[in-house]
Amino acid sequence: MQKRKICVVVTARPSYSRIKTALTAFKAHPQIELQLVVAASALLERYGTAIHYMEADGFKIDAKVFNVLEGENLTAAAKTTGIGILELSSVFENLQPDVVVTIADRFETMATAIAASYMNIPLAHIQGGEVTGNIDEKVRHSITKLADYHLVASEDARERVIKLGEEPDRVYNTGCPSIDLAREVQKSQGLTFDPYENYGGVGAKPDLSKGYWVVMQHPVTNEYKDSRKHIETTLEAIRQYSGFPVLWFWPNVDAGSDGTSTGIRSYRERFDLGEVHFFKNMQGHDFLNLLNHSKGLIGNSSVGIRECSYLGVPVINIGSRQHRRHRGSNVIDVDYNTQDILQAMQQILSNPKAPSETIYGTGNAGAQIADILAKVELRFHKTIVY
Amino acid sequence: MQKRKICVVVTARPSYSRIKTALTAFKAHPQIELQLVVAASALLERYGTAIHYMEADGFKIDAKVFNVLEGENLTAAAKTTGIGILELSSVFENLQPDVVVTIADRFETMATAIAASYMNIPLAHIQGGEVTGNIDEKVRHSITKLADYHLVASEDARERVIKLGEEPDRVYNTGCPSIDLAREVQKSQGLTFDPYENYGGVGAKPDLSKGYWVVMQHPVTNEYKDSRKHIETTLEAIRQYSGFPVLWFWPNVDAGSDGTSTGIRSYRERFDLGEVHFFKNMQGHDFLNLLNHSKGLIGNSSVGIRECSYLGVPVINIGSRQHRRHRGSNVIDVDYNTQDILQAMQQILSNPKAPSETIYGTGNAGAQIADILAKVELRFHKTIVY
Amino acid sequence: MQKRKICVVVTARPSYSRIKTALTAFKAHPQIELQLVVAASALLERYGTAIHYMEADGFKIDAKVFNVLEGENLTAAAKTTGIGILELSSVFENLQPDVVVTIADRFETMATAIAASYMNIPLAHIQGGEVTGNIDEKVRHSITKLADYHLVASEDARERVIKLGEEPDRVYNTGCPSIDLAREVQKSQGLTFDPYENYGGVGAKPDLSKGYWVVMQHPVTNEYKDSRKHIETTLEAIRQYSGFPVLWFWPNVDAGSDGTSTGIRSYRERFDLGEVHFFKNMQGHDFLNLLNHSKGLIGNSSVGIRECSYLGVPVINIGSRQHRRHRGSNVIDVDYNTQDILQAMQQILSNPKAPSETIYGTGNAGAQIADILAKVELRFHKTIVY
Amino acid sequence: MQKRKICVVVTARPSYSRIKTALTAFKAHPQIELQLVVAASALLERYGTAIHYMEADGFKIDAKVFNVLEGENLTAAAKTTGIGILELSSVFENLQPDVVVTIADRFETMATAIAASYMNIPLAHIQGGEVTGNIDEKVRHSITKLADYHLVASEDARERVIKLGEEPDRVYNTGCPSIDLAREVQKSQGLTFDPYENYGGVGAKPDLSKGYWVVMQHPVTNEYKDSRKHIETTLEAIRQYSGFPVLWFWPNVDAGSDGTSTGIRSYRERFDLGEVHFFKNMQGHDFLNLLNHSKGLIGNSSVGIRECSYLGVPVINIGSRQHRRHRGSNVIDVDYNTQDILQAMQQILSNPKAPSETIYGTGNAGAQIADILAKVELRFHKTIVY
Repeated sequence: MQKRKICVVVTARPSYSRIKTALTAFKAHPQIELQLVVAASALLERYGTAIHYMEADGFKIDAKVFNVLEGENLTAAAKTTGIGILELSSVFENLQPDVVVTIADRFETMATAIAASYMNIPLAHIQGGEVTGNIDEKVRHSITKLADYHLVASEDARERVIKLGEEPDRVYNTGCPSIDLAREVQKSQGLTFDPYENYGGVGAKPDLSKGYWVVMQHPVTNEYKDSRKHIETTLEAIRQYSGFPVLWFWPNVDAGSDGTSTGIRSYRERFDLGEVHFFKNMQGHDFLNLLNHSKGLIGNSSVGIRECSYLGVPVINIGSRQHRRHRGSNVIDVDYNTQDILQAMQQILSNPKAPSETIYGTGNAGAQIADILAKVELRFHKTIVY
Repeated sequence: MQKRKICVVVTARPSYSRIKTALTAFKAHPQIELQLVVAASALLERYGTAIHYMEADGFKIDAKVFNVLEGENLTAAAKTTGIGILELSSVFENLQPDVVVTIADRFETMATAIAASYMNIPLAHIQGGEVTGNIDEKVRHSITKLADYHLVASEDARERVIKLGEEPDRVYNTGCPSIDLAREVQKSQGLTFDPYENYGGVGAKPDLSKGYWVVMQHPVTNEYKDSRKHIETTLEAIRQYSGFPVLWFWPNVDAGSDGTSTGIRSYRERFDLGEVHFFKNMQGHDFLNLLNHSKGLIGNSSVGIRECSYLGVPVINIGSRQHRRHRGSNVIDVDYNTQDILQAMQQILSNPKAPSETIYGTGNAGAQIADILAKVELRFHKTIVY
Repeated sequence: MQKRKICVVVTARPSYSRIKTALTAFKAHPQIELQLVVAASALLERYGTAIHYMEADGFKIDAKVFNVLEGENLTAAAKTTGIGILELSSVFENLQPDVVVTIADRFETMATAIAASYMNIPLAHIQGGEVTGNIDEKVRHSITKLADYHLVASEDARERVIKLGEEPDRVYNTGCPSIDLAREVQKSQGLTFDPYENYGGVGAKPDLSKGYWVVMQHPVTNEYKDSRKHIETTLEAIRQYSGFPVLWFWPNVDAGSDGTSTGIRSYRERFDLGEVHFFKNMQGHDFLNLLNHSKGLIGNSSVGIRECSYLGVPVINIGSRQHRRHRGSNVIDVDYNTQDILQAMQQILSNPKAPSETIYGTGNAGAQIADILAKVELRFHKTIVY
Repeated sequence: MQKRKICVVVTARPSYSRIKTALTAFKAHPQIELQLVVAASALLERYGTAIHYMEADGFKIDAKVFNVLEGENLTAAAKTTGIGILELSSVFENLQPDVVVTIADRFETMATAIAASYMNIPLAHIQGGEVTGNIDEKVRHSITKLADYHLVASEDARERVIKLGEEPDRVYNTGCPSIDLAREVQKSQGLTFDPYENYGGVGAKPDLSKGYWVVMQHPVTNEYKDSRKHIETTLEAIRQYSGFPVLWFWPNVDAGSDGTSTGIRSYRERFDLGEVHFFKNMQGHDFLNLLNHSKGLIGNSSVGIRECSYLGVPVINIGSRQHRRHRGSNVIDVDYNTQDILQAMQQILSNPKAPSETIYGTGNAGAQIADILAKVELRFHKTIVY
């Protein structure tokens, strides 16, 4: 029997972390031939070159798509999407996939969704149905309306996709594949690697054995003129704070990333941040291991909402980026405010335990997704249910 | 006070017919500056050069966007959309509109929706919330999830957009602007122009004074390999039929249009179709006048569902293109079947009257749309309501 | 030993006719792996779908590139070239050729030249160094300055390329591969096929056994507003002429092709052209066979200059398109003038013989080109010699 | 009388320095309307945002074109050019220039040349006819063959353009506009500004009053894998050197710039470079003032060949980038070799004077160019002269 060709398009480092166990399951599945396309910032050095990790993890890359148009404005984001459609449609023409998989809600994932659906290729969407507080909200639900299969990460998301007029029997709550990784990581005792040696980076190299904080804060697209101000609020908090060292992760690409990046660079030139080390990126497995043994995560990454909920890691969630996302009791929400951040850090240190919760799955999402896509009836035609 | 700049992107001849009275209302409104962008097939001679009619109607064109990539496959439709995004984002950068208006659900309108929403320009969508049976279904609802304001054409559509998670107070049932035109036309007595003289075309030039049929059948994207077979079924019916003459309108552009067009051309070379005249295109006003005095419309155009419902013109609706669209009692649905088409023609001749209905509005949609967009609070940020 | 991968990009029907024997030689050569890319109008039905002939001739297509942007202006030609670069660079990335071959001087071949040379892939140019009287003149010599190897068709051309500052030992006068085909064809007695049956087309089907004329006239890019007027001059000559029947070939794609095409279509609706049959396209071999037994060729095709010189077929060459191209004694040059065309037709009928000349080669260009490209030292770096 | 619309496309910081006095002359000329388009790296922060200087100098920007596609390979350079054509053709459609001006030979300037020449807009090329030792060689002469007017910078260049088959009376030796600036600067006594205060940058801030060196080394496209090794050779020389401080300028964008940039960044993390300060960019006027009072320039910038020849500033020219370019007695050529660089520095310090030469003009090129383009007969049609 002909294997079913499942083509996954990965456009960013965090998307890879999120899909990795599903990719492993696709590769291992007897009825699936995995086609892996790496695009956009996942190819670029200044966003951490996710493709290197993918190759190191043993995945073969079937096509690379360079489509990030440089520019410090939103127009470039639109054009990046347009170029993505031009390029991905050629890739799909070459690979002739049976199913295309698009992940989550970054602006450029719309290119994958449009190319596949316009070419009558069945489209599976990972992590639809969630709710947040920025432009991703438009992209995510818009992709839901183009997608034929919905592999969602929580019950909350499943219900929302069905409300959007999708047929219930095409909506599957598999949990999030990122939780599969978290489940693996949870078993390990202590840090299993040396972050400085393995990942380089710049800044101080404080001793981590007594504990440390992790910071990861992305620009928020709709407010990109404010992104420099936002990052400076957090930088100021870390500068004023004294206690445990801080491991800071560079933001991923977005219109406005330059505001955030410039903010960090400029701040470092002007001020001494003390025991702070900066990383460009880290393999998902190591990053979760690092988080699992940290005092807590500070910033606005969705890792704080998802994986940290499962791991029981305290999170200080800053600003609107994760607004309305279903969250566990590990999260403290704060505004862009130096004092609020500092106060939340104190609160966590006084009460360092958070419970493990399974809102985003129990840790076998990858295998479930592979099984569903190997067997589901292939269709690219749908109508709204109401 | 600064006028509000409302930018309308027209991508096809039928879209212009549909939006025309709104354009007129924008142009006349004291608080609105109309910016008119003409794109895609609306610029091309082999699809009727809609832009000529727009200029003849006194509209000034602010930008032209050539983005139709030639090809006889769906890949070209995807790439046309990608090129559209590249080009329209430059146009919006130049024009700096306060609101962008996109019309209906053709594949390339997605380019307008993405360029505007990614650039944080408030997006108004005309004719969302409807339901049909082909790929347009994906595009239409996907655009709804990108749009900030919804100007829908029926109560049925209004309810559907709200179910899709849009805020009710941003969904307006104005009726369809095409009904405004139908209302105008309804007042005229008999044919007000000579179709042969004004619009040329090829084929026989039968006498129309005793009555005639109108045919307009587009390819159905999802079934484009079948489009030649489909059109031949209809051609066969017309060839077998003898009675009133037939005025046949060329299809608009779509992947597969060549199947339909080739089908017609080839059929004409092989068979004598008798009293059939072919038109490439006709101004909306004249077309409705022609329909209003016809025996009925045959094909799959949405004009049969909308304007003909208001005008009370009988319609033989063939195949799946208008599937599930809310329709009046003027419509007889048939499959791609020569005998069914012939039988429906007999049925209409026996019982030629259909009632006038206001499902798609009462005829002042253009003015309502202008008023709403002149006054609505401008926002480009939204979240799903549930 | 690894075979050398030679990638040929064919963008139009006439280019295929011109390169065919080289393709055959590449395919047969033990040290060459042929990679065949079909692009632009060579893929499109309304320009004769050259790709069908290539497949029928047993060539495997490695990639298809749709890049023709529809439009009735020169901007579309520029954009078609831009899209071509975007697409071809991806194709070259996938195919990893050792050498790229680009043919002649159509505007879109610049895309091949830029993609290859910017990617440091050695570029071979077929038919550089010639001279004509329209925009091709800019494109052709500009490609020479990007190319690393020059496979020219005449001594005249070889000298010109060297004057352009190219190293003499990278300039090879192989003759034109189209002459290889002409040499084959010359051996056949009479028409070897039935044009009407094999190639369809529209119009009258006159008896060809007593002799016939062939017409092929392309728009001239720089004068595209005049292209309709030009074609009407020729149409008028053919309408006035009575004598032998006429086989007319549709023009290939160019900005302005619509002027020519529209001119022909409109003329046919208004006037009875008599014994004229229209073909969309014809396989190169059959076309030369047809020419070889014709009274002569009328129009502005380069076939009149090249293959007809070898075949000894009289040619009435109209207008500036072949200006300054090195020509044999078979050619009568006339202006866009109905009387001049008619007079030249009479002149040919009075004196129907033209000598066979080898200006453009002796008929083994394909094999020579294959041999050179199989063995030449690969380099993509060059400097001007003076 | 209608002013002649002259549209200049600036794609990089060094191009602006080079064209600035011509822009000033265009702006001041009574018969010229200047249209200024800023594109590619001239818009981007990480290449010094040349557009800010242009605005500060009082120029109005008529259009911005974002076309730099991110990527660490040559494919991205090809695609950047393709996107450039797509975008610039729309810009020219909007601006309707009478003449387009393209500058020098960077890869992306080909987009300007193709868009203009394909749209039948007369094209003027500044600084054609020169000779160097990398890919620019292909681009530069290829543009010459597309251009209608040639405004060259030296007698040597004028002769070469004519040899390329251009009509002599369309080739003008105006000298290089960059010399106009050098002539201005030469009048000033000492440093007229504080580099650290005005231009920021990172690294040590040594006292400059006793003298200093300037370093500017770009990646060489054809050897981009070696670019990191090349820059490390120079970095090593500077690290070993002790004597006067060093002002180092960041390279401009090119495929491979990341090799050079990464090399510098990584070296700085590993080694203490001592009295070295890094600048991202500097206004042309200030940069020449800085050079004029330096001990000498080290690297491979063409400023060393051109402006430094006029200013009489000693230059250590490293590697192949300026190969064969016509140079004065101020230049010492060395290979990528630490010891050779150090030795050349000693040689200059022993013999610090170099003569002023006028190979590249006498300092009124801008005014000459404006005058020529204001009066020249407009044509976009040409043929090779031989």
